[in-house]
Amino acid sequence: MRMYDLIYDKKMGRALSREQIAFWIRGVTDGSIPDEQSAAMLMAICWRGMNTAETLDLTLAMRDSGSRIDLSSVPGLKVDKHSTGGVGDKTTLILGPIVAACGKASGLSCAMFSGRGLGHTGGTVDKFASIPGLNVELSPQAFLESLARTGFANSAQTPDICPADRKLYALRDITATVESIPLITASIMSKKLAGGADALVLDVKCGSGAFMKTREDARALARSMVDVGRAHRLRIKALVTRMDEPLGWAIGNALELVESLEILRGQHPESDLARMSFRLAAEMLLLGGAAQTLDESLATVSASIQDGTAWRALVDFVALNGGDPEVLARPDRLPRSAHHVEIRSPQVGFIQAMDSRALGILAMELGAGRRFLGDTLDLGAGIRVHHPVGSHLREGDVVFTVFTSRPERVVPGAFLETLRIAPEALQPQPWLLETVE
Amino acid sequence: MRMYDLIYDKKMGRALSREQIAFWIRGVTDGSIPDEQSAAMLMAICWRGMNTAETLDLTLAMRDSGSRIDLSSVPGLKVDKHSTGGVGDKTTLILGPIVAACGKASGLSCAMFSGRGLGHTGGTVDKFASIPGLNVELSPQAFLESLARTGFANSAQTPDICPADRKLYALRDITATVESIPLITASIMSKKLAGGADALVLDVKCGSGAFMKTREDARALARSMVDVGRAHRLRIKALVTRMDEPLGWAIGNALELVESLEILRGQHPESDLARMSFRLAAEMLLLGGAAQTLDESLATVSASIQDGTAWRALVDFVALNGGDPEVLARPDRLPRSAHHVEIRSPQVGFIQAMDSRALGILAMELGAGRRFLGDTLDLGAGIRVHHPVGSHLREGDVVFTVFTSRPERVVPGAFLETLRIAPEALQPQPWLLETVE
Repeated sequence: MRMYDLIYDKKMGRALSREQIAFWIRGVTDGSIPDEQSAAMLMAICWRGMNTAETLDLTLAMRDSGSRIDLSSVPGLKVDKHSTGGVGDKTTLILGPIVAACGKASGLSCAMFSGRGLGHTGGTVDKFASIPGLNVELSPQAFLESLARTGFANSAQTPDICPADRKLYALRDITATVESIPLITASIMSKKLAGGADALVLDVKCGSGAFMKTREDARALARSMVDVGRAHRLRIKALVTRMDEPLGWAIGNALELVESLEILRGQHPESDLARMSFRLAAEMLLLGGAAQTLDESLATVSASIQDGTAWRALVDFVALNGGDPEVLARPDRLPRSAHHVEIRSPQVGFIQAMDSRALGILAMELGAGRRFLGDTLDLGAGIRVHHPVGSHLREGDVVFTVFTSRPERVVPGAFLETLRIAPEALQPQPWLLETVE
Repeated sequence: MRMYDLIYDKKMGRALSREQIAFWIRGVTDGSIPDEQSAAMLMAICWRGMNTAETLDLTLAMRDSGSRIDLSSVPGLKVDKHSTGGVGDKTTLILGPIVAACGKASGLSCAMFSGRGLGHTGGTVDKFASIPGLNVELSPQAFLESLARTGFANSAQTPDICPADRKLYALRDITATVESIPLITASIMSKKLAGGADALVLDVKCGSGAFMKTREDARALARSMVDVGRAHRLRIKALVTRMDEPLGWAIGNALELVESLEILRGQHPESDLARMSFRLAAEMLLLGGAAQTLDESLATVSASIQDGTAWRALVDFVALNGGDPEVLARPDRLPRSAHHVEIRSPQVGFIQAMDSRALGILAMELGAGRRFLGDTLDLGAGIRVHHPVGSHLREGDVVFTVFTSRPERVVPGAFLETLRIAPEALQPQPWLLETVE
C-alpha cells in the first residue's frame, strides 16, 4: 500500500477502505508517513468528505493509535457528555454530580475525560482545577475508584490517548483543515470511544461563539457524530444548542465554578444554564437506562437539586480526589483576582446581541484562558456578565465586571464593542435548537 | 501575511492576490514555508482551481524564483515549442532545423530548453544526446552563439531555472496533486517564460499515452496555457493532438533520431509524424512572423525539406555544438543495442488500438527511459513499431522489433498485450483534434 494512492483515491472522490485508513493512521502514529502527504490527504478530505463507514474507520483507527480506558471493573453502565465548546459552558460541573446522584439507584455512573481551555473557549479541567487541592489528572486507578465510589469521575485526558489525533490536529491547525465534518467527528469520537463509556450525549453548539457558525453545519456535525456512534453500537444522542451569547453570567474558571455551585444549590432554575444542564443530565440518565421518559428523567434531576443529593455527590467527588470540600460552601475562599473593574453602559436600550467569541478572547487575555498550549492561567480572572441578551439597559448600568490582576490593562471599549444595543425589544431565543438521534 | 490565511482563502474558494502568491512562492524557494502547508495549498488548488490572473501570477512568481535567460543579444524574434509529453514524440528534432532554415530570411530563430525523459515519456535532450559528441548542456554563452549562428539552440534546462517549480513538483509528485490545470500551466509556462522566447507553440497531447486522457481536459489545459500566455502578451497558440498510439515507428533515443533524420530527408511525408512536425513548424513560423498564412508557411516548410536547407540547419547545429555531423548521414554509426528480438503477431486482424503508455514503460524498462531521475540510459535501446493502428496483420507478421542489450529479459507477451486486434477494419483517426488560440 502506498500513501500516494490513498491521497489520489480521496482526491478523485472515492471512499477509502478500512485497510487504507488504518494504514494511514498507523503511518501518522509511527511517523513513517511524511506530514506533507497527510496534509494533502486532510485537504482532500475537506474537499470530498467521508461517508459514515469511512468516518467510523477513521475514528476507530485513531482510537487504536494509543491506550484505551477499560471501565469494565466498575459495575453498571457509564455515560459521558461532550460539548463542541462555547464560552461560559460549565454544564459538566453541574451535570456530573447530578448524574452521579440520580444514576446511583440503577448503577449508572458518569465517566468523563475533559480538555484544557484553548483560545476563546475554556476547559472543564481548568474550571475544576480552581477547587484547591482537587486532583484533575487522575491515574487510571484513581479514575476507576472515583467512578465506583462517587458515581462520577472527571480527569484531564492523558497523552497516551489517541496520539494520532494529537498529531493530525497539530497538522490541521497549520493547514486550514480543522473545519471538516468527518475530521471533527473522528477527532471527538476517537477520544470518546477511547474513554470507554457506553452512552454519550453530545452538545453541538451553534452560533457566533461556537465552532459551527450555522444551524446547517451544526446539524450536519451532530448527524455525523450520531451516525458514527450508532454504527459502533454506542448509545448516543445530540442536542444542537445556541451559542450566540455566553452561557450563564460567568466567564473564567473560578467564576464559572461559583456559578455552577449556585445552580447545584437550586438558584436560577429558569436560566438557560440551569435548563441546559438539567436537560443534558436528563438525556444522560435516559440513555443510560436510569429513567424511562424525558419527563420522569427531568423530575429526577430536579429532585436531586432540591434534596441536596447532587450537591453531596459533588462534595464526595471533591473530597475523594484531594480537593477541599469546605470551599464549595465558602466560594469566597476560591481564587479571585485582586482587582475588579466595572464596565458601564454608555447608552439606553435593549441588548440585541453579545459577541461571545470576542468575550472569550477578552477573558483569555485576562488570564482566564490560553493563547497557546502551556500558557499558565489566572484561575481567578474572568468576566461577570450582568445582563443577558434581551435585557433592557439604562445609561450607567454595570454590564460587565472584569476580574483581573492587571486592571490597568482593561480597555472598557473592547468590552462594550461586544454588545449591540438598540431601542427595540426582542423575542427571547430558545437555547435548544433541535435534537439528533 | 500568514501562509495559514492563504490556504484558508483558497480552501474557501477565494482568488488569491498577486502579493499572496508571491509570498507563498518566495517561502517555497527559501524554505521558510513548511512543506505540509504547501501540500495543503496544492490540494486546495486542485479543489478550487485558479482563475487566469492567479495562474499568471503563480507562473510569474515561479519564473522569478530563479534565473531567466536573456536572448536579447541575438537579433530577431525567438520562437519555442512545448509538448506535454507523449511516446515516440521526436518532433523537436525535426521542427528545430526546419524553423532555423525557414526563419533565417526574416530573422526568426528557434530557442528551446528541453527536458530529460522520465517514466513512460522520453526527453528531447536524451534523443539529441545519441549524437556522439553533441553538447546537450549548453552554457548561456554557447546557447546564444548557437542561436545566432545556426538559428537553432536546444539545451537541457539548468537547475537555476525555476527552482520553486522543481520543489513544488517534487511535492506534487508525492501528494497526488500533479493533475491540476492551473498547477500544470504554471509549471510549464514559468519555465517557458524564463527561457526568454517571444512566441510559443504548444502541443497538448490527449489520449491513453498522454498526461491528459480526455479531449475536455486537454482542451482546458490548452485554453489555460494560451490564456496565461496572452495575458503576458506572449505570441501563443496550442494544438490539441491525439496520443493514442506512439508517434512514428521509433521509441527510444537513437532510434527516434534515425526516424527524425528520415523525415528531414523527405521520407514518409504523409505520416502523422511528418504532418505533425511540419504543422508545428509552420505554426511557429506564422507566430514568429516568418509567414503570413498557414498555407504559405506549410509550403515554406516543405521546400526546406526538399531543398535540403532544413537538413543543413541540423548539420550546422550539430557541428557547432561538438557533435559529429558525419553520423547524420551514417545512422549505422549511432548507438544501437547489441541484440534485437522480433515480436510476431499470433493472430489475424486489424490493429484496433495500441497502448502507447505501456509501450513507453516497456521501452523505459529496456533502458530507453528513466524510472527515477539519475538512472542511466541505454541510448541504443528501444522499440520499432512496424504497423500503426488500423493496419491489417497476418499471423506471424513482425509487429515490434525490440532493441536491447538484455534479450533474455524480453517477454513477448508483454508487448503483444499492448495491442488490441480484431477482424473489423477501422476508420483512420486524425492526429490534430483542434487548435486553441
